[in-house]
Amino acid sequence: MRGVVMHGPGDVSVEERERPQIVVPSDAIIRVPASCICGSDLWPYRGIAEMSWPTPMGHEYVGIVEEVGDAVSTIKPGQFVIGSFFASDNTCEICQAGYQTHCVQRQPGAATGAQSEFVRIPLADGTLVATPGEPDPELIPSLLAASDVLGTGWFAAVAAQAGPGKTVAVVGDGAVGLLGVLAAQQLGAERIIAMSRHEPRQKLAREFGATDIVEERGDEGVARVKELTGGLGAHSVVEAVGTEESMRQAIRSTRPGGHVGYVGVFHDVALPVEELFFSGINLHGGPAPVRRFLPEFIDLIWNRRIDPGKVFDLELPLDQAAPGYDAMDTRQAIKVLLRS
Amino acid sequence: MRGVVMHGPGDVSVEERERPQIVVPSDAIIRVPASCICGSDLWPYRGIAEMSWPTPMGHEYVGIVEEVGDAVSTIKPGQFVIGSFFASDNTCEICQAGYQTHCVQRQPGAATGAQSEFVRIPLADGTLVATPGEPDPELIPSLLAASDVLGTGWFAAVAAQAGPGKTVAVVGDGAVGLLGVLAAQQLGAERIIAMSRHEPRQKLAREFGATDIVEERGDEGVARVKELTGGLGAHSVVEAVGTEESMRQAIRSTRPGGHVGYVGVFHDVALPVEELFFSGINLHGGPAPVRRFLPEFIDLIWNRRIDPGKVFDLELPLDQAAPGYDAMDTRQAIKVLLRS
Repeated sequence: MRGVVMHGPGDVSVEERERPQIVVPSDAIIRVPASCICGSDLWPYRGIAEMSWPTPMGHEYVGIVEEVGDAVSTIKPGQFVIGSFFASDNTCEICQAGYQTHCVQRQPGAATGAQSEFVRIPLADGTLVATPGEPDPELIPSLLAASDVLGTGWFAAVAAQAGPGKTVAVVGDGAVGLLGVLAAQQLGAERIIAMSRHEPRQKLAREFGATDIVEERGDEGVARVKELTGGLGAHSVVEAVGTEESMRQAIRSTRPGGHVGYVGVFHDVALPVEELFFSGINLHGGPAPVRRFLPEFIDLIWNRRIDPGKVFDLELPLDQAAPGYDAMDTRQAIKVLLRS
Repeated sequence: MRGVVMHGPGDVSVEERERPQIVVPSDAIIRVPASCICGSDLWPYRGIAEMSWPTPMGHEYVGIVEEVGDAVSTIKPGQFVIGSFFASDNTCEICQAGYQTHCVQRQPGAATGAQSEFVRIPLADGTLVATPGEPDPELIPSLLAASDVLGTGWFAAVAAQAGPGKTVAVVGDGAVGLLGVLAAQQLGAERIIAMSRHEPRQKLAREFGATDIVEERGDEGVARVKELTGGLGAHSVVEAVGTEESMRQAIRSTRPGGHVGYVGVFHDVALPVEELFFSGINLHGGPAPVRRFLPEFIDLIWNRRIDPGKVFDLELPLDQAAPGYDAMDTRQAIKVLLRS
């Protein structure tokens, strides 16, 4: 089968690889008609995150179940399924509390790399959620978005306690930030401030429910958010970048007692506790427990109430993964879908 | 009148000072029968926090209203009142949300220093809460504790979402940590782990509701908390110290999705965001909005349902403030009450 392998920073190729097999009885093998490239795949691509080479890439997927291990009881061959970047048993106390990304049995979800024709999924019963039937082809991008980027933006909005009567600000106009806007809108936020200086992303933010756009960054961006909120700051702020500057901007844009939901993946950033302490904000985030939200996402997408697949502005065949990485790295594309 | 003045690290004296006057019409002047020394007073005493010298000391107080400005309408001369370390209008949007320490008009609560015979309180109507009548003398220590140290421990427990069914761990066995134990017990926590290696403090923690004592610190303390919680960590952790080590211990003792309430005052501590991110915890804290809780505290103390005044294990006349500071600095006393 064909699959994407990264050999070092900037070095991605599509290669013939061995088709994955059931390893333990709780595994499933799925055929992957569509996967995608994640903003976090760019960290090793840019040489910022360490990784051992070569590494099969991809952790976002939808697919048709090909085969299941003997211990798998709810997931069946032929089903169309969605999973996420961590496999979880969905039964332990942590999973039951809604934090499946911290499951006591957690392990990589797409064990053999999802940017590939087939992938092995551990803990299939806990990890995978089946759709009500075979999806219409036009639903595939949105269902694929549910695998990570929608779940991550949604979790950030939930962590920021977006909801009725609230003003929500979103720092970051990547796919996660844009879907944070969509989530805030779905959660009933009164006002949604998208922070973006890129016209096509501003447009999508407005489609997803943004009521205000702030182009300024850093302390100027903070000042604009305060201006828009009677000097107090937003109730809820989504941090969807993962740099020291974006985190500082998020914290300073939040009113005392307000909530920052942060999902950007940080590398070597230290937060001065004194500033955090005197800000009086609530901080919550981390790797999003996408599994918690999958049944709701499938329902919303199936009934065409949300269209998160709009974040895919470039679609390529799997064999063209390398130019896909390049397009995301150079911000020519918001998010790239790979068809196999 | 007599009042405590700090002239530099380790240098505290009681001096004849000018009696405070009404400065703006929203002020009140109160006579202070009892004040106390705060753990945070030890930061400048130890030369860790910067301060301009000389500085009148003290921000915890109860007292009898002597005089009010023309704009004060609810607080009246003769009332017995409690306030806290920040003055607040209690009407702005931030106050109404329960974050009076971040009031848009906030300013120091005991403007002229509370370790004194008289003190000027700004924004008297918003800041002060009157008791139902003149308190019995034995209630004075508990009412005084409500002014800061009870409110701070209580806020930490609320921020950590202590409540029914929860296991709460408390890092720090100073007065704030001990009252965090009391708060967790009042909030209905199922199990309360006090982290302390000092026998008299362990005893008080048990009186306040601790069900378990952990003597280990740092990573060993974390391991003990995990042992006591099925390997998962506590649901709620109170951080009541304010050092890098205690914060790390608090974060690592908390299960994913759990809550850390932190009220220790930090100096030059930086938090690695990566560890925080992957911990999946909620973090909330800062200067406690004591004013939010004062009516409830007065009710609980007046009806003798809680006795937070037990944290005062040394009582001295105001003139003996210097040995009082020394006793707290050398940990011979948990907390010192000063009678004037």
